[in-house]
Amino acid sequence: MTLERIEHRACFGGWQDVYRHASETLACGMNFAVYLPPQAQTQRLPVLYWLSGLTCTEQNFITKAGAQRYATEHGLILVAPDTSPRGEDVADADGYDLGKGAGFYVNATQAPWSKHYRMYDYVVSELPALIEANFPATEARAISGHSMGGHGALIVALKNPGRYRSVSAFSPIVAPTRVPWGERAFTAYLGEDREAWKAWDAAALIADATERLPLLVDQGDADEFLAGQLKPELLQAACAAADHPLELRLQPGYDHSYYFIESFIGEHIAYHAHALKA
Amino acid sequence: MTLERIEHRACFGGWQDVYRHASETLACGMNFAVYLPPQAQTQRLPVLYWLSGLTCTEQNFITKAGAQRYATEHGLILVAPDTSPRGEDVADADGYDLGKGAGFYVNATQAPWSKHYRMYDYVVSELPALIEANFPATEARAISGHSMGGHGALIVALKNPGRYRSVSAFSPIVAPTRVPWGERAFTAYLGEDREAWKAWDAAALIADATERLPLLVDQGDADEFLAGQLKPELLQAACAAADHPLELRLQPGYDHSYYFIESFIGEHIAYHAHALKA
Repeated sequence: MTLERIEHRACFGGWQDVYRHASETLACGMNFAVYLPPQAQTQRLPVLYWLSGLTCTEQNFITKAGAQRYATEHGLILVAPDTSPRGEDVADADGYDLGKGAGFYVNATQAPWSKHYRMYDYVVSELPALIEANFPATEARAISGHSMGGHGALIVALKNPGRYRSVSAFSPIVAPTRVPWGERAFTAYLGEDREAWKAWDAAALIADATERLPLLVDQGDADEFLAGQLKPELLQAACAAADHPLELRLQPGYDHSYYFIESFIGEHIAYHAHALKA
Repeated sequence: MTLERIEHRACFGGWQDVYRHASETLACGMNFAVYLPPQAQTQRLPVLYWLSGLTCTEQNFITKAGAQRYATEHGLILVAPDTSPRGEDVADADGYDLGKGAGFYVNATQAPWSKHYRMYDYVVSELPALIEANFPATEARAISGHSMGGHGALIVALKNPGRYRSVSAFSPIVAPTRVPWGERAFTAYLGEDREAWKAWDAAALIADATERLPLLVDQGDADEFLAGQLKPELLQAACAAADHPLELRLQPGYDHSYYFIESFIGEHIAYHAHALKA
């Protein structure tokens, strides 16, 4: 496994880097971003993984969220992968919500997607193994994300009890089996059997969660996708039925953009830091 | 004068807006960004103007610098104009360093540029008049900027004693009459007479500055344009010769990017807030 460092920028006393590697899981070249705060020069640090939303690459979070300030403040490493496999031989589709930039953090079972679209395995296994082997990282992990990436963070934490110390999400797609974005992607990646989709749906997974890991969710009430695609009330109902701890905060006036994320990422990083250092 | 609000986003408790208007000075439609912190709902606030660098629009600073957090903390309005006149009938040139996106904050005297390229008058007069008439702004002004916009901030402050309470710059072009970016732009906008250029060169203006307004300049020592285009030592020498107060901070490891700006914008905003509220 060789890692090629393709960006290296001083930022808040640490380094905002981007690496490129050949992913075995995804069978293609992938970029991921790593922020190493100054504390990483002398000690191993816990890691917060960030999963981005539709259309994003590893760049959006590192250029727009202003998260590095808080990572330096709390001594966390930030890792942000791309949102899908990439490359000329990777299957794609029309529209921003399927194919490249729209991996939905599942393992596809259907052709032509199943050849490369295994973002779940990449995020849960290959990427952390690579981070923990090549960077000054401990095995203390937290996960967060936005929109499609908020869905990713929630299912990754719910499906892997004990593997993450904390989880949070901004504007997540909480019930992809019941909204247009998810229905289109899951039909393509997972096939027509809707029962099989439930293994990738946060609201559906809550009923069987064996770990009571609290969910912290921030949602803007002026989000243009709130009623049609995000539907936080479905997660709220599932958590209430299963007595699963959820802090859902409706933030007045905020939309779906990075202006929302940058406004609250400091609170999320403080929340994860508290769990990671407990 | 009608102002059309084209973006309106909740951010750090306030609103990150973008407006469009017909500029009389520039004879074209222009966008500018305004951040109104929550305090603006109940009181008039001082204004920090931000001038962006080559290739930028009003978007770069508001999406990448993370400045809104500090504007809310200190109760300042942030205003970020575009970097040149815009539109199909506005003269342009090959390359990123002349024409659209590269107004250099001068008043052009040469055809075809003189018809629209009057960014100096726009930034010094039209824009503040419009801000102070249409937003809850006081007449307390500060100015800052990056690269070409750092040059803009320095010359605007030096040429208008008493008009700005404070000035700062990130990685400014301090001596455009003596570096390739400036020489190309000034030849086009101002003609062949190099003596006339000096009225738009911070290092040259220092000798005649009647106001001892301190200059705060941050410069990354890994900046790829440091030796060829920025040359902070020329400003340092001019300030030393004229006994003009300058705080030039060489920041180790930092480059020319927004990762540098976001790392120190908090200190700059605190500095301006102190001057604006004195």
